[in-house]
Amino acid sequence: MNTAPEKSDWFQARYSQDTILSLRITARLHSSRSPFQKIEVFDTDDFGRILVLDGVLNVAELDEFIYHEMMTHVPLFTHEKPERILVVGGGDGGILREAVKHDCVRDAVLVEIDKEVTDVSRRFFPKVSSALSDSRVTVIHDDASKYIQSQRNAFDGIIIDSTDPIGAGERLFTPQFYRNCFAALTENGVLSAQSESPFFDPDIVKDLYATAAQVFPIVRMYTAFMPSYVSGLWSFLYASKNTDPVAGFQAERYAHMNIEYQYYNADIHRASFSLPSFVKKQFSM
Amino acid sequence: MNTAPEKSDWFQARYSQDTILSLRITARLHSSRSPFQKIEVFDTDDFGRILVLDGVLNVAELDEFIYHEMMTHVPLFTHEKPERILVVGGGDGGILREAVKHDCVRDAVLVEIDKEVTDVSRRFFPKVSSALSDSRVTVIHDDASKYIQSQRNAFDGIIIDSTDPIGAGERLFTPQFYRNCFAALTENGVLSAQSESPFFDPDIVKDLYATAAQVFPIVRMYTAFMPSYVSGLWSFLYASKNTDPVAGFQAERYAHMNIEYQYYNADIHRASFSLPSFVKKQFSM
Repeated sequence: MNTAPEKSDWFQARYSQDTILSLRITARLHSSRSPFQKIEVFDTDDFGRILVLDGVLNVAELDEFIYHEMMTHVPLFTHEKPERILVVGGGDGGILREAVKHDCVRDAVLVEIDKEVTDVSRRFFPKVSSALSDSRVTVIHDDASKYIQSQRNAFDGIIIDSTDPIGAGERLFTPQFYRNCFAALTENGVLSAQSESPFFDPDIVKDLYATAAQVFPIVRMYTAFMPSYVSGLWSFLYASKNTDPVAGFQAERYAHMNIEYQYYNADIHRASFSLPSFVKKQFSM
Repeated sequence: MNTAPEKSDWFQARYSQDTILSLRITARLHSSRSPFQKIEVFDTDDFGRILVLDGVLNVAELDEFIYHEMMTHVPLFTHEKPERILVVGGGDGGILREAVKHDCVRDAVLVEIDKEVTDVSRRFFPKVSSALSDSRVTVIHDDASKYIQSQRNAFDGIIIDSTDPIGAGERLFTPQFYRNCFAALTENGVLSAQSESPFFDPDIVKDLYATAAQVFPIVRMYTAFMPSYVSGLWSFLYASKNTDPVAGFQAERYAHMNIEYQYYNADIHRASFSLPSFVKKQFSM
């Protein structure tokens, strides 16, 4: 059992310098370098097809439904009638796929800095990227931190599907960006953002919640199981102008829509805001 | 980033033949072969000290509190006053440590087939094994599947801290064993068992729940994040003679005891029974 994985056959997802999740690669489908990052696509045995950006696993067929459902439905089901949605990053299209399941959504704008990510997703991840061609969707290839500056009272929901806060992603973790999101949201606006692993990135997590709390009256953490992400425990930031994410759950609209989810459901919505004691203590929640 | 881990420096936790979590070893503290299994103890960077049985990671300092708290407090807080507890396996002592925090517990019996596991845990995991010396604890080194045959109406709670269902552990997954547990429990008796990963062991999970449901009127699944276990999503089986684990939560006794938990709390108790849609569907729950 101690045979070391060989370089050529394995993709290595690093939790840290000292902990590595190795996935056996069955096919190397794509490798390119965009103006922003290295983009790779592999097929693996257990995690299905994976999208890798600058060496970091971003999307795995095995569990992408968890991330995309939880990023999207949790905030949108705390709004009475979300009509205009902004997706920041998320060029793979997975958030859009979930967002357009809400029949009240009339416009969904995706601002993804890297056109090559959307191109690669359309080509290699048809199930994830399907909504990129939806008639209600507008795809803009620009820096979202610039785009948001001109938006006022424009979106009922903003979903921040960023990479880790290094390189281009860093601008999406600043107080100024959150202030601009607040201004871009309508009166009862809601927001979600991926917020890393409480086990392996506690400092990033702490900083992000402090940043959001400077701007939004209501900031809460929720969690989901993500086997392909560091530690399997992934956290998400919920922020709103006036809505408690549990008390504000729109049970009637949820029941009426009757979507077939793979992870999300009404129980999971509420349960995901129940945090382990060490997480509450660590982040004073 | 693609340097392969070297055999001598890494412990490899296998999710499957095609997915491996590698932990960098900083010290090899112990290696022996008992009559039942190979027992190893390593220090690692991110996961702290780990106990490895037959190559499978059983206890990691990083997250053992999650497993032990959830295995113990979830069932015990669905019983009004658990006084006699049986721990099956669990020779490291972690379940006992949590069980004796319930001041109503008068006797806790540990039946661990492998004396060397308790010896190694006392020596290398003092924080996990502390309760092995508690005056209310009796440690018996025997086959639990035999021990249980002579027990009738004897325990208010049974906690099955088994290894995977291979080798000696297999006997703890049979209908006969569950029938004997039922007989060994008192009138309002409750039971918990570790029940593997829904992502990577769906067949084992399915079989175990079908087995328990043959015997117990109430069988439910609950989950917790376990970064050191396969996929990070771990499931636990709850079974009882007459108690719903959520409606039957003993809120008053919980509030009165005022234990400082690292993972468990009243919200987590309820939330842990909210299952992802794919898990409900997969196991018809």
